[in-house]
Amino acid sequence: MTDNSSALVVFSGGQDSTTCLFWAMEKFTKIQAISFDYGQRHNIELQIAEKICEKYSITHEILAVNSLKELGGNSLTMDSMAVTFEATENSLPNTFVPGRNIIFLTLAAARAYQMNITNIVTGVGQEDYSGYPDCREEFVDSMEKTLRLGTDKAFVIHRPLMFLNKAEIWELSDQLGHLQEIIESTHTCYNGIRDQLHDWGYGCGSCPACKLRADGYRLYMEKKNGI
Amino acid sequence: MTDNSSALVVFSGGQDSTTCLFWAMEKFTKIQAISFDYGQRHNIELQIAEKICEKYSITHEILAVNSLKELGGNSLTMDSMAVTFEATENSLPNTFVPGRNIIFLTLAAARAYQMNITNIVTGVGQEDYSGYPDCREEFVDSMEKTLRLGTDKAFVIHRPLMFLNKAEIWELSDQLGHLQEIIESTHTCYNGIRDQLHDWGYGCGSCPACKLRADGYRLYMEKKNGI
Repeated sequence: MTDNSSALVVFSGGQDSTTCLFWAMEKFTKIQAISFDYGQRHNIELQIAEKICEKYSITHEILAVNSLKELGGNSLTMDSMAVTFEATENSLPNTFVPGRNIIFLTLAAARAYQMNITNIVTGVGQEDYSGYPDCREEFVDSMEKTLRLGTDKAFVIHRPLMFLNKAEIWELSDQLGHLQEIIESTHTCYNGIRDQLHDWGYGCGSCPACKLRADGYRLYMEKKNGI
Repeated sequence: MTDNSSALVVFSGGQDSTTCLFWAMEKFTKIQAISFDYGQRHNIELQIAEKICEKYSITHEILAVNSLKELGGNSLTMDSMAVTFEATENSLPNTFVPGRNIIFLTLAAARAYQMNITNIVTGVGQEDYSGYPDCREEFVDSMEKTLRLGTDKAFVIHRPLMFLNKAEIWELSDQLGHLQEIIESTHTCYNGIRDQLHDWGYGCGSCPACKLRADGYRLYMEKKNGI
């Protein structure tokens, strides 16, 4: 029988998916988390994901996805390629792995299927999506339909951050009572730097992911402090 | 620039996808083939796929997909599970890997994306689909839309066998001039048996895949010979 009180959270250990994890803990009785080891260069994420799940006693699985590395051709998995954030000839930054979210959501759905869970939670959002087409609402709607049709199971893909910008994501984590946890535990930096704790968290401070995180934090703090 | 004269064929070495390969060779100027090594028990398919591509000088890639084996839970990848074809409590035969075709089509699309190819050819069909939801037209339509939205690339998933039954698939391969090749080269048998050549090809003759293949052959021969 389908268990509507449970949800499977697609969980990277980053700010967004950790906020989703806390969101899901409020909304569902039972939470499971799944992370993907796809040969990402910033795989410190996976250790952080594990730690957070341990702390909150959430069952956590790290599923190996070798195929993305084998497909190669992008800077998030290829050691030899410099991370740039300018648009390539395909008009997308070279951190784009074509179809990455389709694979992740499908694997999450396959695992959820086996556990009779139909609620899947993802942290993707289209506000700060820097051109990634597989973060848009229209894509997630279509993905949800494809999963339903492909499995005959009434999956719901929850995407609580879809229309939130980074400042609003900070606000949500504060409302959920986990602002400090997000600052200290979660990882965002594309360069995997964790040597200095800024007010917004750890990171190199100069890659676009750090900048987005830090700027959002500053904006939310200004709002919170009435500046 | 997108190359409309090329196509990437999702190619298992089985009867259906080999017929699709010959279909694509007629329709497109340049063909590439991709197969998936997902820990299938009948991996003799992959060797056959390789041989056929060599014979017709088609560039062929075998991409390793470990995730499906790691997800486990079905008889096509688990050595310990008997192959049964009766419906399980989910009303699907236990050869069903949830989301398998979503993964395969997405990985094919990711590779096609890198090669600037938008035409993808798959042998799935809903006539003899024995309950697999991810073989239906409605699913493939939704998958195509999801791929387009997720990558901003105008993928077309060609599915020439969608509404053909097995006898009609035999007929198509005959029309394409490759009936004998299909009989002698392709593999269908779930049990991986290839010790005796029947008039319809190799196989155990008793698993549902062999029965479907043999029955379809007989029906087409009766039609061809005007019986």
